[in-house]
Amino acid sequence: MSKKVITISREFGSGGRTVAKAVAERLGYTFYDKALVELIAKESGYSQEFVERRGEDATSTSSFLFNLARSGSVGVDGYSDISDKLYVIQHNIIKRLPDEGPCVIVGRCSDYILKDLSDALHVYIYADMSFKVDRIVKLYGEMDDAPEKRLEEKDKKRKVYYRNYTGRIWGMSNNYDICLNSGKLGIESCVDMIVELAQR
Amino acid sequence: MSKKVITISREFGSGGRTVAKAVAERLGYTFYDKALVELIAKESGYSQEFVERRGEDATSTSSFLFNLARSGSVGVDGYSDISDKLYVIQHNIIKRLPDEGPCVIVGRCSDYILKDLSDALHVYIYADMSFKVDRIVKLYGEMDDAPEKRLEEKDKKRKVYYRNYTGRIWGMSNNYDICLNSGKLGIESCVDMIVELAQR
Repeated sequence: MSKKVITISREFGSGGRTVAKAVAERLGYTFYDKALVELIAKESGYSQEFVERRGEDATSTSSFLFNLARSGSVGVDGYSDISDKLYVIQHNIIKRLPDEGPCVIVGRCSDYILKDLSDALHVYIYADMSFKVDRIVKLYGEMDDAPEKRLEEKDKKRKVYYRNYTGRIWGMSNNYDICLNSGKLGIESCVDMIVELAQR
Repeated sequence: MSKKVITISREFGSGGRTVAKAVAERLGYTFYDKALVELIAKESGYSQEFVERRGEDATSTSSFLFNLARSGSVGVDGYSDISDKLYVIQHNIIKRLPDEGPCVIVGRCSDYILKDLSDALHVYIYADMSFKVDRIVKLYGEMDDAPEKRLEEKDKKRKVYYRNYTGRIWGMSNNYDICLNSGKLGIESCVDMIVELAQR
C-alpha cells in the first residue's frame, strides 16, 4: 500500500527539510513546512513569525501532558498558555491535513499526532555534528556563536518541546518507521529511499 | 564506496538476526552471530552456552566505563569481573574481525566498537510490540510468561548491557547509520535496503 502521508522529523542542520521538500516534489505531494505555519497563524491569530518561533521551540519546563492528566486543563502562566494554545491548534490542523490529500509534513510532532494513521510513513533525519556544522555554515554563514553551540541549542529546544507534548524521547528510533543518517548516506540517497518506500 | 562491514543491532523478536543472516548470504559476507560466540568461548575458556548467556545480557548495575574512568581498572565482585573480562575479549575480537574480510556482525556492541571504521554500515532493527509478539510465539511457541514480558525483559537486559559498556542509549538513532522498523517495512524490504546501501 502506498503511503499518502509522510512525516519528516529532523535534527537542525541535517538537511531533513531539503529531503522533505525533494520528496514532496518527486511524489507530487503537498509540502507542509511554511504552509503549515501559515495555517496555524491564520487559525490562531498570531503572526507567522511568532508561530515559527514558538511553534517548535517551547522552552517551557511545565509538562502539557502532565498538567492535562492531573487537572484536565493546561497551563497557568501566560507563556505556557500560549504555547499550549498553539499546540492544540497545530494538533487539530495536522490531524485534518491527510483529508486534504497526499502530503509531506515537516516536524511539529506530526509523527506523534499521526502515529495511528495506517497509510503514513514516519521518517527521522539526523547527521553527525561535523556534517551539520559544514552545512549550516554554508547555508547561513558564520555567526557570533560557534556553530556547534547553535546546533545544540536549537535541537535541545526541539527535544524539550517534543518531550513536553508527546511524552516521548526525540530521536528514539521506535518513534519512527525509518531513521536515516543523511551525513553518512547522502541527501539524495535519503530522498530516493523515502520515495521508493512511499510508492510501494 | 562499498561497505565491507555491517553491524546489525536488533530488538528481540524484530527479526533483526534473520535480516542480518539474509544480508550476509546475499553479499557473500561472513556472518558473525554464533560464530562470534564460538570465538569468544575459545579465547576466554568459558563454554559457548555461558558466553551466550552472559555476553549480551549482563544485569550488573556497576558501570564498566565509570569504574574504568575512576580507578583505571574494572570490576571488584566476581560477577562483574567475569562480564567485564568477557567484554574485553569480545571487544578485541570484534576489533580484529574486519581484517579477516567482509562480514556482518550481530549485536554485542559491535556498532560502538567499530564506530570509527570508515567502510562500515551500522544498522538498527526494531518493531512494534504486536509484530514482535506474533513473531516470537510463532518461532518459540507459548511459554509460561506472557510474550510481552519476555520481550521487555530481554531488551531491558540488552539495554543495560549496552549502556554499561558504551555509555550510550540503546536504540537512539544517532548511534546508527540507518534504523529500520521491520514490522512496518517488512523483513525482505529491510534486507533489500541494507544490501543496496552496502553495494553502492
